[in-house]
Amino acid sequence: MDELEKKEKINMCRHSLAHVLAKAVKQLYGDKAKLAIGPSISDGFYYDFDTTVLSQNEFDKIEKKMQEIIKQGEEFKRLEVSRDEALKIFKDEPYKVELIKELPDGEIISCYTLGDDFIELCRGPHVENTAKLQSYAFKINRLSGAYWKGSEKNKMLQRLYVYAFPDKKQLADHIASVEEAQKRDHNKLGRELEFFTTVDYIGQGLPILLPRGAKTIQILQRFVEDEEERRGYLLTKTPFMSKNDLFKISGHWDHYKESMFVLGDEEKDKEVFCLRPMTCPFQYQVYLNRPRSYKDLPMRLGETSTLFRNEASGECHGLIRVRQFTISEGHLMVRPDQLENEFKGCLDLATYMLKVLGLYDDVSFRFSKWDENNKDKYIGSKEEWERVQGEMRRILNDLNVDFYEADGEAAFYGPKLDIQIKNVFGKEDTIITIQIDFQIAERFSMYYTDADGQKKLPYIIHRTSLGCYERTLAYLIEKYAGALPLWMSAEQVRVMNISEDSENYATKINEKLQKCGIRSKLDTRNEKIGYKIREASNYKVPYMIIVGTGEEQNNTISIRGRGNENLSNIKLEDFINRLEKEMKEFK
Amino acid sequence: MDELEKKEKINMCRHSLAHVLAKAVKQLYGDKAKLAIGPSISDGFYYDFDTTVLSQNEFDKIEKKMQEIIKQGEEFKRLEVSRDEALKIFKDEPYKVELIKELPDGEIISCYTLGDDFIELCRGPHVENTAKLQSYAFKINRLSGAYWKGSEKNKMLQRLYVYAFPDKKQLADHIASVEEAQKRDHNKLGRELEFFTTVDYIGQGLPILLPRGAKTIQILQRFVEDEEERRGYLLTKTPFMSKNDLFKISGHWDHYKESMFVLGDEEKDKEVFCLRPMTCPFQYQVYLNRPRSYKDLPMRLGETSTLFRNEASGECHGLIRVRQFTISEGHLMVRPDQLENEFKGCLDLATYMLKVLGLYDDVSFRFSKWDENNKDKYIGSKEEWERVQGEMRRILNDLNVDFYEADGEAAFYGPKLDIQIKNVFGKEDTIITIQIDFQIAERFSMYYTDADGQKKLPYIIHRTSLGCYERTLAYLIEKYAGALPLWMSAEQVRVMNISEDSENYATKINEKLQKCGIRSKLDTRNEKIGYKIREASNYKVPYMIIVGTGEEQNNTISIRGRGNENLSNIKLEDFINRLEKEMKEFK
Repeated sequence: MDELEKKEKINMCRHSLAHVLAKAVKQLYGDKAKLAIGPSISDGFYYDFDTTVLSQNEFDKIEKKMQEIIKQGEEFKRLEVSRDEALKIFKDEPYKVELIKELPDGEIISCYTLGDDFIELCRGPHVENTAKLQSYAFKINRLSGAYWKGSEKNKMLQRLYVYAFPDKKQLADHIASVEEAQKRDHNKLGRELEFFTTVDYIGQGLPILLPRGAKTIQILQRFVEDEEERRGYLLTKTPFMSKNDLFKISGHWDHYKESMFVLGDEEKDKEVFCLRPMTCPFQYQVYLNRPRSYKDLPMRLGETSTLFRNEASGECHGLIRVRQFTISEGHLMVRPDQLENEFKGCLDLATYMLKVLGLYDDVSFRFSKWDENNKDKYIGSKEEWERVQGEMRRILNDLNVDFYEADGEAAFYGPKLDIQIKNVFGKEDTIITIQIDFQIAERFSMYYTDADGQKKLPYIIHRTSLGCYERTLAYLIEKYAGALPLWMSAEQVRVMNISEDSENYATKINEKLQKCGIRSKLDTRNEKIGYKIREASNYKVPYMIIVGTGEEQNNTISIRGRGNENLSNIKLEDFINRLEKEMKEFK
Repeated sequence: MDELEKKEKINMCRHSLAHVLAKAVKQLYGDKAKLAIGPSISDGFYYDFDTTVLSQNEFDKIEKKMQEIIKQGEEFKRLEVSRDEALKIFKDEPYKVELIKELPDGEIISCYTLGDDFIELCRGPHVENTAKLQSYAFKINRLSGAYWKGSEKNKMLQRLYVYAFPDKKQLADHIASVEEAQKRDHNKLGRELEFFTTVDYIGQGLPILLPRGAKTIQILQRFVEDEEERRGYLLTKTPFMSKNDLFKISGHWDHYKESMFVLGDEEKDKEVFCLRPMTCPFQYQVYLNRPRSYKDLPMRLGETSTLFRNEASGECHGLIRVRQFTISEGHLMVRPDQLENEFKGCLDLATYMLKVLGLYDDVSFRFSKWDENNKDKYIGSKEEWERVQGEMRRILNDLNVDFYEADGEAAFYGPKLDIQIKNVFGKEDTIITIQIDFQIAERFSMYYTDADGQKKLPYIIHRTSLGCYERTLAYLIEKYAGALPLWMSAEQVRVMNISEDSENYATKINEKLQKCGIRSKLDTRNEKIGYKIREASNYKVPYMIIVGTGEEQNNTISIRGRGNENLSNIKLEDFINRLEKEMKEFK
């Protein structure tokens, strides 16, 4: 059995279990629960009911009933019926009736019975008999609301999510991994550790970065800005909004308007402004500020840039899907003979950043191409797209990038190399992108005078060094379970005194650390040392320095590291040296 | 004659000269120029004509005609007439007719004749005879368009601006100072030196900071953030937009909506967003993130914050009046017993910043109070305002602040200390503000538990360390005529080789400087050294290093400073030490 067959078999078993669940619920609650739909999903299945009887207290009862049905070895049997017959069979199930009425004329309507007293509208396939499900391990995971057909306009139904796996070990492993993921979930842990919060009256997708989160993002932004400067980038700061005239030239007004925040109305207002969803057409103005020659190229521009995208409230998620975000955005205007080398420079910078953050081993490389069957989404001719995609593939091969290809994922102006990363629940997003744009320079008349005196257009590389800082922080929180590396921790050291006698000594130690540029905080509250240690541990502060009269007499410190390291009788200078070494190594 | 009488006399002379100008224009162009109005202004007067005959070529002719009229010693005579008589006198001057018709019934209508053949609608007063104007020196400065009554809906008239002073010396001094101001005008110089630009299709008030400007602002922002951290501030990063629900609580929706960019429409949209005009209610969420006790206070929060204000296109000016700006915004939540000390800390920080920037001697301190006669603009009772304004006056006196008072300049929630600065043309704006807010904490239920177990509300100090960075950059450009101090210059040193032979040596020198953290650039273009020096001088680069084979042999450098300093045979290390010393001293 190959992978695909295996997967199909698992899905069939999960979907068969969904029928078992539906039957169990009908047996338990009868007409108080109306059936909607119950597909298989990546870790089991769900079933939507229109009911008010379900609650977490009922899960055991339902699971037991499901086990009974499985033990009885009931048969799944396929029936094919006419529309009229189907409507008669399901006359008491309004959601099934709605589905039947929507089926095209002439389509065969199939149902599956389960035992003598249960029937479901279903395409199948199913196992022949519930006996085949006996080795399966399942567990009702949670109950949540879900709109019928996913639309806010419809009634809210009750959805039971159920984990289902071929055996007990796989189920147990899955539950353990979900529990671990939940512990690391940045949307939970990031709030507990006071990296960020959200506030209802401000809105979804507009996180407030609390001092811990804000400081780490400041550290990352400065790091990126400085590294870019070292690599010959020029810093820019361009406005976050513009008249829509700009976006008409750039093509965003035609190709991206739905995702933009628009202020005003063309029919009524003299000026219509848009919040920018991308930095590109703003940064081009720096290039356009005076005439350019081939000697000015490559021109590398970098900006810590804030962008806005009009996401639906329901789509917003923690720091990962937000309405406002900040990104290390840059554009390189390059001559054709510089394209490969500059692309390489961008990839090298991205790789360096990922390694420094410790995320390099977690990413994959996606070569994102246009979709020939969806030409409306893109500008430019087929010939141009094929030429530039060919050029990009050649460069990726030259650079030994281990990439996979994806159609329909290009930008509207050119192909991309997307560096992809998964969050702790397996959802994939782009963290860094490098794009080759062969079209927009013409729209903005970005000509340069070449050595031969001719006016020519540059390629533009759109790229990020680090993608969205908010999203990056989310991945870092999940990767390190909140215990961020020393160099990017807002609080690196907490100094605490055992008793009042050593308050002055603790204060002096803290001052010395701060003078050396260590982000140290002082806790001389009149609390038990155990309480203070617990609090610092909860915040995952990398190092605690604990001092009492003993340490003061010896002019030393005691250290407690986050990884349960304990060191006594250390000289402060030695500890500072160690911290500086670790930071240099991005630990 | 006291100052006020002197000023009144000058205004009378200037306004009399406006009549002379109007008569001259009528004599020269007759009915081709219709008269509008001609008031005195701070450096002379202007006169608006509805005409197409004026141009710069005519200035000499008009000035000569004015001199003739003055020499003839013509008399100004006051006439009082009825409305009907006035309408008859001015029947060929439609703008005068419009003004006459607008006068309230029963008002005395006064006119002034000038000689036998000219009459003006005018309140006066005037000099008795143009002979009194003979010592006066005047010069037509420029012609510009101006809408009748200042409204875009009316016709565009032609305005002649004329400088006018009691004698030739004063006129010459004024022209010289205007020329100097124009040379320093950040809106001209800042563009020439490539600090910033604006682009029509992006919009007014949305400057693009080019690399030179962006780098200086980055330096200033990091400097402020680091200094605030040293002073116990916690960094935050809060979103630039919010649902209007937030601004309804804060009071901005009622008191500030006209100045805000609003996205959406309450009648139609589920969510209405606003771009933030201030950071206050966002930063409060950091305080509100968990319950607070008296031990948490004072809490000092700082943010490099971007704000948006919906200025009219015509109001926007360079980097000084903009629609989007970034500011070092901070809020301190303090107990009553901490208010004075924390206020002092804010003032100390502001003073330090102004001194570091070299702007301290250029500012004045304004104690901005509410306007009792305009209560609608403010929240809170008269008693509370008087109490808090009294408290603030006491603090200002305690701190020996040399302030003046201004009614009606408070924030809607409390009094302010505004630090005021004038631009090169004498226009005054606020550069730094420190405000005491005794009202908003209640709106957001920002209670803390005091030592006595009671729930209490903190004072909130709203303050900036540096005001709008864009505006500060404008003042710095004007103050230093573009030659920014070394420590904040984007390009500190430019290294150039005299000939190809010394290219490698120049390259090595540049690399060494960069390794030491000096912002150095290399110019090894195959151009004459004089050309390269001129270019670096034009950009006002603080130091040029010029190297040839002689320097290479001696392993030294030659230096040319911005202030025409020339040094030969210097060791690179000594020069680097000098640079580091100057930077430490904020030179």
